[in-house]
Amino acid sequence: MAQVFLSRSRKPANLIWYQAWLRWQSTSPLAQPVHDVSPADRLEPRAPVVVTPEIPGPRSKELASRLGQYQNTDAVHFFVDYERSQGNYVVDVDGNCLLDIFTQIASLPLGYNHPRLVKAMQKPENLATVINRPALGSYPPVDYVERLQNSLLSVAPPGLHQVQTMGCGSCSVENGMKAINMAYQRRIRGPRPYSDEELQSCIVNRSPGSPKLSFLSFANGFHGRTMGSLALTHAKWYVKLDFPAPDWPIAEFPQLRYPLEEFTQENQQEEQRCLEQVRDRIEQWAKRGEPVSGMCIEPIQGDGGDNHASPAFFQGLQDICDETGLYMMFDEVQTGGGVSGKYWAHEHFNLRHAPHVVAFSKRMLSGGFYFADELRPTEGYRIFNTWTGDPSRLVLLEQVIKEVKEEGLMANATLVGRYMLDGLRMLQCEFPGLVRNARGLGTLCAVDIRDANTRADLLRKMRNRGVNLGMCGVSGIRLRPSLLFKRRHVDIFLDRLRTTLAELK
Amino acid sequence: MAQVFLSRSRKPANLIWYQAWLRWQSTSPLAQPVHDVSPADRLEPRAPVVVTPEIPGPRSKELASRLGQYQNTDAVHFFVDYERSQGNYVVDVDGNCLLDIFTQIASLPLGYNHPRLVKAMQKPENLATVINRPALGSYPPVDYVERLQNSLLSVAPPGLHQVQTMGCGSCSVENGMKAINMAYQRRIRGPRPYSDEELQSCIVNRSPGSPKLSFLSFANGFHGRTMGSLALTHAKWYVKLDFPAPDWPIAEFPQLRYPLEEFTQENQQEEQRCLEQVRDRIEQWAKRGEPVSGMCIEPIQGDGGDNHASPAFFQGLQDICDETGLYMMFDEVQTGGGVSGKYWAHEHFNLRHAPHVVAFSKRMLSGGFYFADELRPTEGYRIFNTWTGDPSRLVLLEQVIKEVKEEGLMANATLVGRYMLDGLRMLQCEFPGLVRNARGLGTLCAVDIRDANTRADLLRKMRNRGVNLGMCGVSGIRLRPSLLFKRRHVDIFLDRLRTTLAELK
Repeated sequence: MAQVFLSRSRKPANLIWYQAWLRWQSTSPLAQPVHDVSPADRLEPRAPVVVTPEIPGPRSKELASRLGQYQNTDAVHFFVDYERSQGNYVVDVDGNCLLDIFTQIASLPLGYNHPRLVKAMQKPENLATVINRPALGSYPPVDYVERLQNSLLSVAPPGLHQVQTMGCGSCSVENGMKAINMAYQRRIRGPRPYSDEELQSCIVNRSPGSPKLSFLSFANGFHGRTMGSLALTHAKWYVKLDFPAPDWPIAEFPQLRYPLEEFTQENQQEEQRCLEQVRDRIEQWAKRGEPVSGMCIEPIQGDGGDNHASPAFFQGLQDICDETGLYMMFDEVQTGGGVSGKYWAHEHFNLRHAPHVVAFSKRMLSGGFYFADELRPTEGYRIFNTWTGDPSRLVLLEQVIKEVKEEGLMANATLVGRYMLDGLRMLQCEFPGLVRNARGLGTLCAVDIRDANTRADLLRKMRNRGVNLGMCGVSGIRLRPSLLFKRRHVDIFLDRLRTTLAELK
Repeated sequence: MAQVFLSRSRKPANLIWYQAWLRWQSTSPLAQPVHDVSPADRLEPRAPVVVTPEIPGPRSKELASRLGQYQNTDAVHFFVDYERSQGNYVVDVDGNCLLDIFTQIASLPLGYNHPRLVKAMQKPENLATVINRPALGSYPPVDYVERLQNSLLSVAPPGLHQVQTMGCGSCSVENGMKAINMAYQRRIRGPRPYSDEELQSCIVNRSPGSPKLSFLSFANGFHGRTMGSLALTHAKWYVKLDFPAPDWPIAEFPQLRYPLEEFTQENQQEEQRCLEQVRDRIEQWAKRGEPVSGMCIEPIQGDGGDNHASPAFFQGLQDICDETGLYMMFDEVQTGGGVSGKYWAHEHFNLRHAPHVVAFSKRMLSGGFYFADELRPTEGYRIFNTWTGDPSRLVLLEQVIKEVKEEGLMANATLVGRYMLDGLRMLQCEFPGLVRNARGLGTLCAVDIRDANTRADLLRKMRNRGVNLGMCGVSGIRLRPSLLFKRRHVDIFLDRLRTTLAELK
């Protein structure tokens, strides 16, 4: 109760500060921040402020009902004033200012309106990139090679030197799969040219041109929502129901017990069990005449529940791939971009060699995938579509990467993540039964709440206290802060979480 | 030969003008054009100018070889200086200035650097939309409803009031299909709630949750390259080979004889034959236990060869859909946006009622689809992904639509298209055997060239004469100018085409 009181008592002071900040913000253009130690920090509000009795407030509700004329809006949380949002704080249309630990489903690397990005987009040459979106595969812009080098290639996963941009995460996974299927068929075909039968049958979706290949995925995985990527996705019913899907092999993802250090042996056995299942599935589908060309896996399963596995498990998967000739794709759409403490989460696994494909999107701002030389298409137009990405996103990504490097934001993610995880573990001790399985890598942290209903309550209460969170799995809370998230933000989050948990106990 | 001489003799004068234009352009910011009758026109170069012996020139080649370190570049035509390109003219990195009649694979409605778009993007509130890309389905921006109303909804196809944005054309078709499959299953299920079996089986790609539904498409159709949209695509081998695909029904698209008015009866019979095939396929797949939930068709097949069919054919298809309970999706990714003389090409067909889905992308700048009320999802997160489009594209689209309305650009497309088609018919008479089947609706014009090799020669020669063209089908040339294309541009195009054809005769 003391916590509630404290948290409430802070409000008036914050409110006064916040109103001053709003006034200041409207007179001080974002593009000319005080350039100091960390200019981005200086622009941010000091704490969350909630000015309506609940969120969504009346204006959000009114806008949602207007939007409801044109589409289903059940997934709308609240409407945002993007111009006013700043750093780790999202400002909604009712004037509420929330600490955002979900950052547009993990897709804003530097929070809102980072001065560096604002500045980059004001340059005329960059504006031209926004206005004249090219068909990138046929008419790339003059600075495209340089852009790629300064952005995506400068943070390529070790061992991978090829890259292809795409529009979104689903398309990235789909095209990663296509690159794998081409390489797989090339290996089988050997040096012989394409047969007429292949060239003709593929046009009408028939083998041998459209071969009966399958692709292995994992229970609780999430890889996208177009037909191919959805076939690899095993998430909530509303993602899957009513959509036809190919019958491809699915293996279980290890369900580890936490804290990991206490259940070493059990977890090892669990991972071994899953690895055997993978072998088994590959054999089964080969016998069926639908050989598995590759597998797709998240380094940490996100939507499916922030499920971790050990480096040994991933090494084991790579061994199986090498033995059976499968290609391995990491889906780093949610885990990439530095938040794990390394640029790519799979770098934590000490693999013997690079995976064949690493798909990305979200906080990389552009979709796409890195791929092994072996997977490079041998003809033009094989991996292609009208836009194949958007170079204006690389303009922004270049600035993000500069900021990450200059401000040491990966080290920050490691330290802040550890601090946040420690805090979550404390709460787990304080509220046994209510909070479980605190886990994390960098700031990719999560806890499980007693049950789905309690979680829903908690998310609502936290939002009304000015903290925006995401969920995952059956009853998990998924923390996806920006790379600018600092200890002071963790303190605010933990303080309000503690207050809320005390109410729910 | 006279033509060649004429065309050559023009070069020096153009070159002098062009160099002056380049100087003027670099001192006169694009954002402050002379606001006159048509400001966009005033900014444009007067004619194509080619300054290198061939295109791609040395700088394009060098950049392509550098890009070649990181990806296959066989589809790269040349590198573009987007800042310098203007209106209907694309300027490449070697300083060549080409009349662009392919406009980034038909995706630039107002050509390059239209002053209206430049101006819109300079506004700080619009910049914020570019920088803070939202998870649109959950956290829409404050002005989203208004943006939708002023852009997509203001040009909605008659009878359709629901709209969902998406990232690209493939995703639009995929999600249109999903909306159809949901509605189809809802109709079968009736008022009963989802069964546990459905909810559980869908997670692992099994029926009844993932039902064995099929989707009908047409030979030579092109609908995208992700697994679901690719299953509907029946294009060149390099689009299809090596990728597994579901065995869904494919019907023939009518192959009409031109000029249409001379072959009325033959063409009627051909369309009747195709309609019967459609009926037949629907029955066949129903018998197999994989009922057809819907069909997807382009109003004019683009990539597949600019194939037209009569309004009667499309009316016949709608009749079949109504009788058999199929949902009908028009893929207007290439035909939408006003170039047909109406905003949507299917509006030319006098259908009895609106189609169920109209998918768009390309010159609409944003992907997405309009859909019938009946197709509206009944739960949130059913049609969803992280970004579900990009509101900054709607900022631009709003300006495009304003320009289309204020400058009468649809009427322009009708008139200019007719003028261009007349010119192509003249050339067809002048070069019988070499040019065939001139056809068009608005500026969506095409001709067939003697054979694929001659076409390749022609495209290369035309590019070296300063005209950038696209191809379609086996030997077709696809004309996809911007909405700003005028008679004077047609004259330049036809003049150079005549010269080139004379060389190839």
